[in-house]
Amino acid sequence: MELLEQRILKDGVVKAGNVLKVDSFLNHCMDVKLFQEMGKEFARLYEGAGINKILTIESSGIGIACITAMVFDVPVVYAKKTITLNIDGEVYGAKVHSFTHQADYTVIVSQKFLGPEDRVLIIDDFLANGCALEGLSDIVRQSGAELIGAGIAIEKGFQEGGRLLREKGLRIESLAIIDSMNSETGEIEFRHE
Amino acid sequence: MELLEQRILKDGVVKAGNVLKVDSFLNHCMDVKLFQEMGKEFARLYEGAGINKILTIESSGIGIACITAMVFDVPVVYAKKTITLNIDGEVYGAKVHSFTHQADYTVIVSQKFLGPEDRVLIIDDFLANGCALEGLSDIVRQSGAELIGAGIAIEKGFQEGGRLLREKGLRIESLAIIDSMNSETGEIEFRHE
Repeated sequence: MELLEQRILKDGVVKAGNVLKVDSFLNHCMDVKLFQEMGKEFARLYEGAGINKILTIESSGIGIACITAMVFDVPVVYAKKTITLNIDGEVYGAKVHSFTHQADYTVIVSQKFLGPEDRVLIIDDFLANGCALEGLSDIVRQSGAELIGAGIAIEKGFQEGGRLLREKGLRIESLAIIDSMNSETGEIEFRHE
Repeated sequence: MELLEQRILKDGVVKAGNVLKVDSFLNHCMDVKLFQEMGKEFARLYEGAGINKILTIESSGIGIACITAMVFDVPVVYAKKTITLNIDGEVYGAKVHSFTHQADYTVIVSQKFLGPEDRVLIIDDFLANGCALEGLSDIVRQSGAELIGAGIAIEKGFQEGGRLLREKGLRIESLAIIDSMNSETGEIEFRHE
């Protein structure tokens, strides 16, 4: 998606350790107008797929998921990273490793909000090693819902998550796929297929 | 706001310990159409106030804040609850006590995304003891931005946060204020002034 790639080139900052900082428009300060264009693109890509629910994970996926849900006219469910006092009843759960936080955590979704009647699109801001997406896919499987696919803002194509999950048959639409980036020169190369 | 009050009466569940579960439409499964109506109401209440930025706190405030930001046509900044590897540079910080999680935590906002040029509306899903709202207000003060007010979905009027913060001069617009609720009968009484 040209608009997102241009924004990454303009405002993204490549840091050592394969870190791409996009906090000025994607995951700390959020440009909701950009999110709306991204939502429209996801709607174009998944047109006719009968999606009736969007699933995401806290926290940085929620904004994109909600604006995309406005375009699709469906509700959003977000997976929570810890069991709070306010979640009761039965939950679907999956273990996820976070490279950002260097920790394992459990993501949970109440069984009330996902079931066999659902056709699910997973939305997230980043895809790198694929741990979060795999955990969310596992939760959709547990619920009996149909997983139509995933919509990702930025995929780090040089990490293996996207390849591995596509090989398992998951449809993944990433709006920008980065093939390489260089923290010394700041250069970013996108994949165009 | 009639629409929100009716939804709380229909789908909210009163639990022991002054807990109101609204996870079927507000903070786990999210009804973005309802959020849009809430955003329009915040826009009506703050019309002409020149708001150019919305500030919220992860995670449950993000959805309402983003949809509201679409209505206001401004960006959203969300305060983060832990320092991750991806936040660098200087941050504004405030300590907040969470009664839900029974813990203290620090909320931070990058200094890049809030400054004297900003006229800020704080959006959150709940106001009870007011700790989160006080922390966010403190961050706005630190940044030199002007705090125009707060927009809250549900205020627990029987807890003192709203009263204390209004006495300090903060404008707070809550779309539903609960004066009392009873976990045995399930009854909920709203304040109408």
